[in-house]
Amino acid sequence: MHSSSAVPFPRKRCGVLGCTGSVGQRFALLLEAHPYFSLHVVGASHSSCGKTYGDAVKWKQSTPLAAASAELVVKECIPEEFFDCDLVFSGLDDSVAGGIETSFVSAGIPVFSNAKNHRQDPLVPLVVPTANLSHLGLIPAQRAKLKATSIPKSSRNGDGNSDIVDTGMLVCNSNCSVVGVAVPFAALEHAFGKGCIASASITTLQAISGGGYPGVPSMDIMDNIVPFISGEEAKISSEARKILGSISYDETGLASIQEAAVKISATCTRVPVLDGHTAVVSVRFAQRPLPTIEALKEALEGFKPEAQTLGCPSAPKRAIVVMREHDRPQPRLDRGIEGGYAVSVGRLREDESGVWDAMFLFSGQQERRY
Amino acid sequence: MHSSSAVPFPRKRCGVLGCTGSVGQRFALLLEAHPYFSLHVVGASHSSCGKTYGDAVKWKQSTPLAAASAELVVKECIPEEFFDCDLVFSGLDDSVAGGIETSFVSAGIPVFSNAKNHRQDPLVPLVVPTANLSHLGLIPAQRAKLKATSIPKSSRNGDGNSDIVDTGMLVCNSNCSVVGVAVPFAALEHAFGKGCIASASITTLQAISGGGYPGVPSMDIMDNIVPFISGEEAKISSEARKILGSISYDETGLASIQEAAVKISATCTRVPVLDGHTAVVSVRFAQRPLPTIEALKEALEGFKPEAQTLGCPSAPKRAIVVMREHDRPQPRLDRGIEGGYAVSVGRLREDESGVWDAMFLFSGQQERRY
Amino acid sequence: MHSSSAVPFPRKRCGVLGCTGSVGQRFALLLEAHPYFSLHVVGASHSSCGKTYGDAVKWKQSTPLAAASAELVVKECIPEEFFDCDLVFSGLDDSVAGGIETSFVSAGIPVFSNAKNHRQDPLVPLVVPTANLSHLGLIPAQRAKLKATSIPKSSRNGDGNSDIVDTGMLVCNSNCSVVGVAVPFAALEHAFGKGCIASASITTLQAISGGGYPGVPSMDIMDNIVPFISGEEAKISSEARKILGSISYDETGLASIQEAAVKISATCTRVPVLDGHTAVVSVRFAQRPLPTIEALKEALEGFKPEAQTLGCPSAPKRAIVVMREHDRPQPRLDRGIEGGYAVSVGRLREDESGVWDAMFLFSGQQERRY
Amino acid sequence: MHSSSAVPFPRKRCGVLGCTGSVGQRFALLLEAHPYFSLHVVGASHSSCGKTYGDAVKWKQSTPLAAASAELVVKECIPEEFFDCDLVFSGLDDSVAGGIETSFVSAGIPVFSNAKNHRQDPLVPLVVPTANLSHLGLIPAQRAKLKATSIPKSSRNGDGNSDIVDTGMLVCNSNCSVVGVAVPFAALEHAFGKGCIASASITTLQAISGGGYPGVPSMDIMDNIVPFISGEEAKISSEARKILGSISYDETGLASIQEAAVKISATCTRVPVLDGHTAVVSVRFAQRPLPTIEALKEALEGFKPEAQTLGCPSAPKRAIVVMREHDRPQPRLDRGIEGGYAVSVGRLREDESGVWDAMFLFSGQQERRY
Repeated sequence: MHSSSAVPFPRKRCGVLGCTGSVGQRFALLLEAHPYFSLHVVGASHSSCGKTYGDAVKWKQSTPLAAASAELVVKECIPEEFFDCDLVFSGLDDSVAGGIETSFVSAGIPVFSNAKNHRQDPLVPLVVPTANLSHLGLIPAQRAKLKATSIPKSSRNGDGNSDIVDTGMLVCNSNCSVVGVAVPFAALEHAFGKGCIASASITTLQAISGGGYPGVPSMDIMDNIVPFISGEEAKISSEARKILGSISYDETGLASIQEAAVKISATCTRVPVLDGHTAVVSVRFAQRPLPTIEALKEALEGFKPEAQTLGCPSAPKRAIVVMREHDRPQPRLDRGIEGGYAVSVGRLREDESGVWDAMFLFSGQQERRY
Repeated sequence: MHSSSAVPFPRKRCGVLGCTGSVGQRFALLLEAHPYFSLHVVGASHSSCGKTYGDAVKWKQSTPLAAASAELVVKECIPEEFFDCDLVFSGLDDSVAGGIETSFVSAGIPVFSNAKNHRQDPLVPLVVPTANLSHLGLIPAQRAKLKATSIPKSSRNGDGNSDIVDTGMLVCNSNCSVVGVAVPFAALEHAFGKGCIASASITTLQAISGGGYPGVPSMDIMDNIVPFISGEEAKISSEARKILGSISYDETGLASIQEAAVKISATCTRVPVLDGHTAVVSVRFAQRPLPTIEALKEALEGFKPEAQTLGCPSAPKRAIVVMREHDRPQPRLDRGIEGGYAVSVGRLREDESGVWDAMFLFSGQQERRY
Repeated sequence: MHSSSAVPFPRKRCGVLGCTGSVGQRFALLLEAHPYFSLHVVGASHSSCGKTYGDAVKWKQSTPLAAASAELVVKECIPEEFFDCDLVFSGLDDSVAGGIETSFVSAGIPVFSNAKNHRQDPLVPLVVPTANLSHLGLIPAQRAKLKATSIPKSSRNGDGNSDIVDTGMLVCNSNCSVVGVAVPFAALEHAFGKGCIASASITTLQAISGGGYPGVPSMDIMDNIVPFISGEEAKISSEARKILGSISYDETGLASIQEAAVKISATCTRVPVLDGHTAVVSVRFAQRPLPTIEALKEALEGFKPEAQTLGCPSAPKRAIVVMREHDRPQPRLDRGIEGGYAVSVGRLREDESGVWDAMFLFSGQQERRY
Repeated sequence: MHSSSAVPFPRKRCGVLGCTGSVGQRFALLLEAHPYFSLHVVGASHSSCGKTYGDAVKWKQSTPLAAASAELVVKECIPEEFFDCDLVFSGLDDSVAGGIETSFVSAGIPVFSNAKNHRQDPLVPLVVPTANLSHLGLIPAQRAKLKATSIPKSSRNGDGNSDIVDTGMLVCNSNCSVVGVAVPFAALEHAFGKGCIASASITTLQAISGGGYPGVPSMDIMDNIVPFISGEEAKISSEARKILGSISYDETGLASIQEAAVKISATCTRVPVLDGHTAVVSVRFAQRPLPTIEALKEALEGFKPEAQTLGCPSAPKRAIVVMREHDRPQPRLDRGIEGGYAVSVGRLREDESGVWDAMFLFSGQQERRY
């Protein structure tokens, strides 16, 4: 393995699992453009193995695949093919992600996954970089359990060596529409205290890119709304509660997460928009007196993402952009704000009907989360 | 003037004010297809007067304008040109509708208006035919006030004759997105009692046809959401409360409306859909125990529109269609249900988060309300 | 089997092969609404067999499936299950249509197919009802060949009985975008003589419904043009030449088709339109002097579809509608003209550049061809 | 005025006429991002004068207006307000552009215009930077005529001073859909000789951004094609012939343009695409033998834009990008190629029907032409 260099931020060799899918394509593009990461190995299903990436993929991004990436030979998604990587990103389909990701972690390879399979595992951090980086503190507990339970056959550190579990780890990112709730709520809790939001209601207007490729048939969505996305509503509630959860450490120094108690009522719809989810959010606070709208605005705008403090090159300067225009955010105009890494918030206001304490809209892109 | 015939439903001669606009075009089409109504006089702004309707209008409907209608000569929107009509429908723009409609009523001509100008007048019935026909009981009070205050210069019944106010009247229809709230809520109140709904939240996904023509620029809405429609949110609340209000009569037999007390929190968005508004609705009931979801379903499906009892040919057989499919209603597939006169309701369910008592979606067309 | 009744147009029992696909769904709807046809048996692939049609199909039409149709049990696509039908319509996928359709014909069942597999067979009539009904004269030759070559194992007329080939037959309809060329060209040949058009150029803007369901992914076509449709350009030329071909009879009375000689240069594109293909057509005539634009207009408008002469209830009154407006036809506004069975022609004009003799646009729907 | 500095490419102070329109907004963005230009003065119609640009404009671009630009005070579109500029870009509406631009040129200010008013003036260069920069050779003749005919009242060089006409000049850019014809044709003429193309046919599928803002109503274009764009077809032919024309000089050294003789048959349609015009082009060559498709490909790919030779920072590395994929270019995926300044060509092929010699498609953006 390569040694840790004295130079800050040595370039990391990255693998992408599920490289031909739409999430995998985005991973490839983001890695190509990243100063500290490089695309080193790409993996996909059996039918693509042995082909070059350029030949295997049906490229659907407006930015072309770099020539060097296109020449990579697609590998099978087994740890042995990725031992040369410092970490892998998984854009695997839910139908296969569970087992493959586990095998990589057991083999000592850090995995950052976009799949839903392990998101609810209490030892797997579900991380929104601008909201809950502290949850990475779960890793030692995750490794401890891994060490106690797994008997790996081979690892990149040697055969069956027990050290392996000191390098393997799994971190999940969240469902795309959750980010727009988690980041503003984290900002409000930062300003007004953990648990400050008692309940919330959210109606999403989600873009078709969230459905992958080929994904949503045009016959279903052109000139139409599909007012249901399978499993999405439950995920918004459960993932937001985990992301907003508190991390605590036991006497041995191992961490666990206590889910937040906020109640979230969700309805998810699919709309004819290519990229960028929009949502309408209403909140009720746990305490009185209520923060003023101006105080809410300051709390959102002033929220400093920890990822930026750490110097991550893709971390947005602002985690949340509060728009003043009365008809923004709009997904087409605002999906590129802060390179797509910020959550745009607009129409922050009191609810004149008195049903809720405050209302706002957010718009955010869904496949830029590292 | 025409005499009341013994034959049931004599054909009524109708006028259309604002015939060149998109609402006026719909009025013309609906009248052409109606068994009891005929299109008799069309009026528009000065620049169209004297032309034939076919030449003056930029026709935007998929059903062509009938040849007979196309040959009508466009008149100025003054009562004198419409004395030969039994009633007029107003598709006038809000900027001019107020005064013109008043002048017609004062001249003894019944006006059914799609404009917002007089909707909040306490003596003007705001009628959704499948929800609150009883509010037409306001007419005598409206005429009484008219008689007391106006000194008409001319009327179709003669010059300055005080009888006029016995034929003039003004009835408004409601904002298009209100219908989908008003009809289901009327059904629930019919089943569970006036005032059974304490509060509600609604997020609309409104079609571009609601913006008229030329209306929403394509540069604004293609691949986009516009999360604001001027004035719309306030109208949903105020109009729904008026429509759901109770009518009562004083000792002289004159009626008045007491607005309903339901609190409605609304957010309105524009989506790239041609026709058919969709909305997400959440409700909290005033009493416990709660009606079951099955009971709610029965209340909605069993609701008999009074308009149908009266034998109106365009009244839908069902005021509300409850869809069982998990991903319906969808505006493109369902906007034609019951000829566009019904409200389609779907995803009727408990709110698992406990924030609300029940949730549903509706979809409904917006320019078919008579 | 049914006997020929004295009553005109006895109701025919129809089968639909491939009933769950989008073409099959349209066949079902059209049959339900047809005065002389009834939907009697539905067939689909193995995975749907045994289910009711309502359960097996993912219904995608805005008109709901009739209750009686929904209760039909889906059968396997083998002749034995359809012996009770007078004829079948095939909406089968190209990957399986070839063999299945042949087996039905061999078993004595008339098949009307939307699949491309047999369209270029010289003995199979490729029929556009408003253009070349005379090509049905190929049937006796088709049956003669069938009798000479096939040894059917079973037929609806009895086992292995040689009579079968007197009832079986196969008729194909054409690729959807060909219709808009074939009908106007047939009209021009009717007026100005066979072979009057020497060459033509066509650029199509085809709707997504032509790609079936799920068909075109929304990620591919929203806010986009896909300037290629596999195999489509070759089909336009070859199918148009066959449809416009002359039928002649040999001394034994058997017919054959001589393809037309017109050269057609085609480019096909897919556009974000739900239904209704549009195309730009330019033509050069074989002779001089040229017909005037007015004469062309009269030839198109005056063209009487033979299907109408025969009294087919779905035959349009006009085969071709020539629009005078300078910006029509438009697919959204004009796809319903004549119930979708007519070809709308617009912008008929001389080519001022002198490159072509005449130019026009057409718009037509693609799944209404019987 | 500032003097020409020895430093290469001194920063030029630029004005924008019609700054609130969609062309003007693009000019502002491009100038903000340009290394040698700066946005110095903005002008618009009377109703905007005196406001800050940020307040006056309804900003519709996804890139926000820079703060410094937003604070500029909008001026009236008269030369006196722009004397401090080195040059101005005109995004004025055709209804006013003619006279205003002339007044600026007469006052000694160089004008680069996007309006159509002066495009056909034989002394005004109609320039596509990657095709016919040599036409700028018309400027001395333009100035000579200006000197001979105009009696300016004031100029930025002094009052009524005859020197003025040595600084004023007018250069037009072409209609957006012409660029995709002009650049490939220029490349082919560069390789195979002036006049090598005898005739051509073009069908455009134009984006809505070409219609400006508010421009095309969404009710007109969603789920639809509008097969007519007023005046566009004539412009394609006349502007392409001017752009491809030859420049020659008389004995006094003054230039004139001889229009190219190529015949171009055009049909223009509007499609529901936001940005990026697509077109189908067919060509017939003047000579035999024909160049091979491979030779055509090399001619297009090898074409070096003169603008790049001059070191213009926004000049694309490639004037024409020839795509190998069978289904490209596509406007959504390819509109950003070479920063939007290149023409993407695809499906370059022989016409199998023999009607044309060669066919191709192009896609290009329309508001990035400097």
